Amino acid sequence: MSRTLTAAVTALALAGVAAAPAIAQTRKSIQAPAKPLTLKARGSFYVGGESAEATAAELGIGVADRVTINQMYVEFMEPVGRAKLPIILVHGAGLSGKSYDTTPDGRAGWFEYMARQGHPTYVIDQVGRARSGFNHITLNRRLLGEAAAAQPAANPTAVPGGVGGPGGPRGAAFRFGEQYGVWTNFRFGPKPGEAFQDEQFPVEAVGELAKQSIPDLSSLVPQPNPTLKNLADLAVDLDGAVLLGHSQSGAFPMETALVNASGLRALVAVEPGGCRPSYTDAQIATLAKVPTLILFGDHLPNDTGMGPNSVTWQNRYDGCAAYAARIKAAGGKIELIKTTDLGIRGNSHMLMQDRNSDRIADIILKWVDANARKAG
Amino acid sequence: MSRTLTAAVTALALAGVAAAPAIAQTRKSIQAPAKPLTLKARGSFYVGGESAEATAAELGIGVADRVTINQMYVEFMEPVGRAKLPIILVHGAGLSGKSYDTTPDGRAGWFEYMARQGHPTYVIDQVGRARSGFNHITLNRRLLGEAAAAQPAANPTAVPGGVGGPGGPRGAAFRFGEQYGVWTNFRFGPKPGEAFQDEQFPVEAVGELAKQSIPDLSSLVPQPNPTLKNLADLAVDLDGAVLLGHSQSGAFPMETALVNASGLRALVAVEPGGCRPSYTDAQIATLAKVPTLILFGDHLPNDTGMGPNSVTWQNRYDGCAAYAARIKAAGGKIELIKTTDLGIRGNSHMLMQDRNSDRIADIILKWVDANARKAG
Repeated sequence: MSRTLTAAVTALALAGVAAAPAIAQTRKSIQAPAKPLTLKARGSFYVGGESAEATAAELGIGVADRVTINQMYVEFMEPVGRAKLPIILVHGAGLSGKSYDTTPDGRAGWFEYMARQGHPTYVIDQVGRARSGFNHITLNRRLLGEAAAAQPAANPTAVPGGVGGPGGPRGAAFRFGEQYGVWTNFRFGPKPGEAFQDEQFPVEAVGELAKQSIPDLSSLVPQPNPTLKNLADLAVDLDGAVLLGHSQSGAFPMETALVNASGLRALVAVEPGGCRPSYTDAQIATLAKVPTLILFGDHLPNDTGMGPNSVTWQNRYDGCAAYAARIKAAGGKIELIKTTDLGIRGNSHMLMQDRNSDRIADIILKWVDANARKAG
Repeated sequence: MSRTLTAAVTALALAGVAAAPAIAQTRKSIQAPAKPLTLKARGSFYVGGESAEATAAELGIGVADRVTINQMYVEFMEPVGRAKLPIILVHGAGLSGKSYDTTPDGRAGWFEYMARQGHPTYVIDQVGRARSGFNHITLNRRLLGEAAAAQPAANPTAVPGGVGGPGGPRGAAFRFGEQYGVWTNFRFGPKPGEAFQDEQFPVEAVGELAKQSIPDLSSLVPQPNPTLKNLADLAVDLDGAVLLGHSQSGAFPMETALVNASGLRALVAVEPGGCRPSYTDAQIATLAKVPTLILFGDHLPNDTGMGPNSVTWQNRYDGCAAYAARIKAAGGKIELIKTTDLGIRGNSHMLMQDRNSDRIADIILKWVDANARKAG
């Protein structure tokens, strides 16, 4: 066991929480909801995608063939009863749509909670990850040694001010580790294994969040990121939707609005990795037409533990405050809220998994009810 | 446009089906079921996983940290009413659990259909793919140039007689293409774009299946494949389950039984990539204790189009016949069926997506009702 790990386990023991591997989620540990869930429809499909031709070596399967790349996986639940506005939930860096399903401590996530509140709810996997896959032709070319020299510096984030990781060797894959990438960076506490007194994240189940952390191949995703057009197309297909992004995808609602805002009834950014500071006045004018909510949690100045160049969540909040000021100056409707502004303490970066995740969802849904544009 | 692609498009036109990109699935194209679906519980969780320490360079995130590897994503739906035996569905090579959800032509897949028939139904993503992620530390090491020289020949399949692909350069990733990997290999017709007269796969929606095809990093998965122990553990957690594998995972039910058969009430292999011929008599004795169904479709001798070394599905069927004979000789209960034995024509390799997928599910569920072992 490494010294770091030993220290972390000791810290965990001191903090009175078990080390991650001791808490294994099972089917039996997942709470049965009080009321059955009745769905008019549910399922999954893909949005977008383009054909690409690949050689046998590039495909790795012994025969040249055509594959589809840049498609986006979507799963959905549509409750019975009069449908409210659809909501599309987008996960952050190093994660998948699983972020929004059953929480690490076994409660219903926002996917199910929002559906139970009457909203047809859509969860995606970003292009470059999970069930959306990634362009492995590019990856295999790198492994074959072609194109490696011509490879530009990797940038794992589609949005400046995002997670800011270096993107891995030759830009292949990156992933958040459990002690710094998650514990300190996601503000569970001041150092690995030590939780804030008022921490809302269920830290005893941090090992379950660690399992949700999967390799992120955003560095292989072309620019502009096809996820943005796919999201715009999905919102149009749904005849209008609220688009909610988180962390690395926190600014995706805005970026998507700049691709095509016609399907977007409201933009919600939950703890965005950054609000882009460089929008033109024309872009701001477009963005000001769609009501926007930006929501942050608690303990924003906490040291991320991600190295001397990493920015704090307070820095990110400040950047979003500057963005909100520009939108307001352009006559737009925008709210920038910290949960602490509402008297709620201890929320982490993973608000959709915090113990009070239902309450946070209620804040968002209440704002949506009051502010989302009507169709057309 | 390449000559191959032009030929395929011409063939598609001749066959009276549109080229793949013309059929884009949307939310609106997905059929609403006649009856709402009422669930006692639903959600997702991970089974298994181990901690691994990685350097900053290996992680690609600027700080050394601990990550979890080899965990298995599981999603489930548990219907209301008296619960029948749980069923666990495992996807094949180059695919994810999405195989079992909404079909390419917009009908409910086996995930929902089996839940509607009263079975708590569990769908997994194999370790090495999709929401289970993969060990990108190994991948990043290869990209960094370390360990590349020591790299053994890649084998993308956990089970001999599986898909038989070469596994990509340095064993990184492989993926099925749409024309050969899917069309001919999955027996939609004798050549790309040309469907069998009686074909059951909804070939007009082949582009949607192409989107489900994602990079397969099975070559990074250690041996023994952690998916097997994870499946065994899941079956025990469920107090007994039917385990169903398909294609590359077709023999996973048997392999899982050899890890721990105590949770397995029945083994179902749908078009297994191969039945392992090399089991010892002791292993056969263990396997003979669990009722087994092996199911194949139609047009088995079709040329796979995957090159001169590829084996036909008839070869694979024959291998399973030899396996079934050994199980029977050991006193086991096993059925090896071709859908054509039941007078059903035209089923492809993707029986869970064929137009008659409900009917095929009924055949399996009827066999389960009649044969699955009772608990304990």
